[in-house]
Amino acid sequence: MRIGELSRKTGVPVPTIKYYVREGLLPPGELTSPNQASYGEAHERRLHLIRALLDVGGMKVAEIADVLNAMDDPTRTLHKVLGAAASRLGPAHTEHDDTESAAAHAVVADLVSRRGWRTHETTPAAADLAKALAAMARLGHGAFVEVLDAYADAAEQVARADLAYVDRRVAVEDMVESVVIGTVLGEAVFNALRRLAHVDASAKLYGTDEMPPERKTG
Amino acid sequence: MRIGELSRKTGVPVPTIKYYVREGLLPPGELTSPNQASYGEAHERRLHLIRALLDVGGMKVAEIADVLNAMDDPTRTLHKVLGAAASRLGPAHTEHDDTESAAAHAVVADLVSRRGWRTHETTPAAADLAKALAAMARLGHGAFVEVLDAYADAAEQVARADLAYVDRRVAVEDMVESVVIGTVLGEAVFNALRRLAHVDASAKLYGTDEMPPERKTG
Repeated sequence: MRIGELSRKTGVPVPTIKYYVREGLLPPGELTSPNQASYGEAHERRLHLIRALLDVGGMKVAEIADVLNAMDDPTRTLHKVLGAAASRLGPAHTEHDDTESAAAHAVVADLVSRRGWRTHETTPAAADLAKALAAMARLGHGAFVEVLDAYADAAEQVARADLAYVDRRVAVEDMVESVVIGTVLGEAVFNALRRLAHVDASAKLYGTDEMPPERKTG
Repeated sequence: MRIGELSRKTGVPVPTIKYYVREGLLPPGELTSPNQASYGEAHERRLHLIRALLDVGGMKVAEIADVLNAMDDPTRTLHKVLGAAASRLGPAHTEHDDTESAAAHAVVADLVSRRGWRTHETTPAAADLAKALAAMARLGHGAFVEVLDAYADAAEQVARADLAYVDRRVAVEDMVESVVIGTVLGEAVFNALRRLAHVDASAKLYGTDEMPPERKTG
């Protein structure tokens, strides 16, 4: 198909498609004349993926390029692709070497060992977890670690559901793309559900969806 | 304290602190002479919050400014603050008016009614959920809705833990700030735990933390 039809089918404007090609997110179309290129279903699918990572995943164009490059790399491993997908959390450019950080790393190591998780406390996700807990501790919410096991129970439940879905539904050749979609879009799905459940839990606890102190003083 | 001490205590460079003041993220210090300002504990705490939202929450400076303005607004409501905190998912600037979008909205309305959640299918979180599900459907993962109830169970569990924590730990005057911290950093905590649990679940299912197809062909 021509670029105009690709644009119509995906809702992505033609100049934006050209920009994605220039930035290496989308492979160029096949030249049918010096000024005209032809695009196929793979382009359509890739455009849907780019928009999903951008609009739903909140990723930046450069981060998406990293993920797609890792996906397209024939020597890719699951770790590499997931690492690229996770890198949008960014490097720990304010990784403090303080008490809170050391304590958070100890909490994560203890959690991983206590739950018998077959993973290491040095994986990027573990580092991200420690970083988030340390940031909470610096804000006076060190006691948040008390709810960590409730979170971990829920995370195990979600991970089991994800794996069962992948195992049942996904063809082996689509595995890498599915893992990227599941990691990034699955996060967005869970985060939205968590916020919906907050409103419900708050309504049940306080009988209102407004903040309790405001209802009391209002 | 002077700006140099504030910088030392928080690990944020002096020019960055000045930039946050210019952008309205941090209130200016109290002028003690025409060229010198004095900063207090509130500044230190606010700086920790800004860095947490930036580094852990992955928010942009303009988005953080919106959240902090909503927090500082005396007429604030929980909804307004949470709405600002959630806005980093961005407006649905490619909200398609297509079959997938209509189907996703119906799935969300059904979920909310079936679970008896005291919320509306028009809240921003519900719109984000529909957007994520529609994006998955466009990528051929419409069957992902099969795991939605497992996700919703886990989300309810996390929301109950969050509310119990807030109810037990948080003074009424810190409520708004705690909700922002819990929403943004709690998401980062859960997402990291989910990725850790994926590695574990995958190791248990496939006996390896690499992708199954690569082990088979490798």
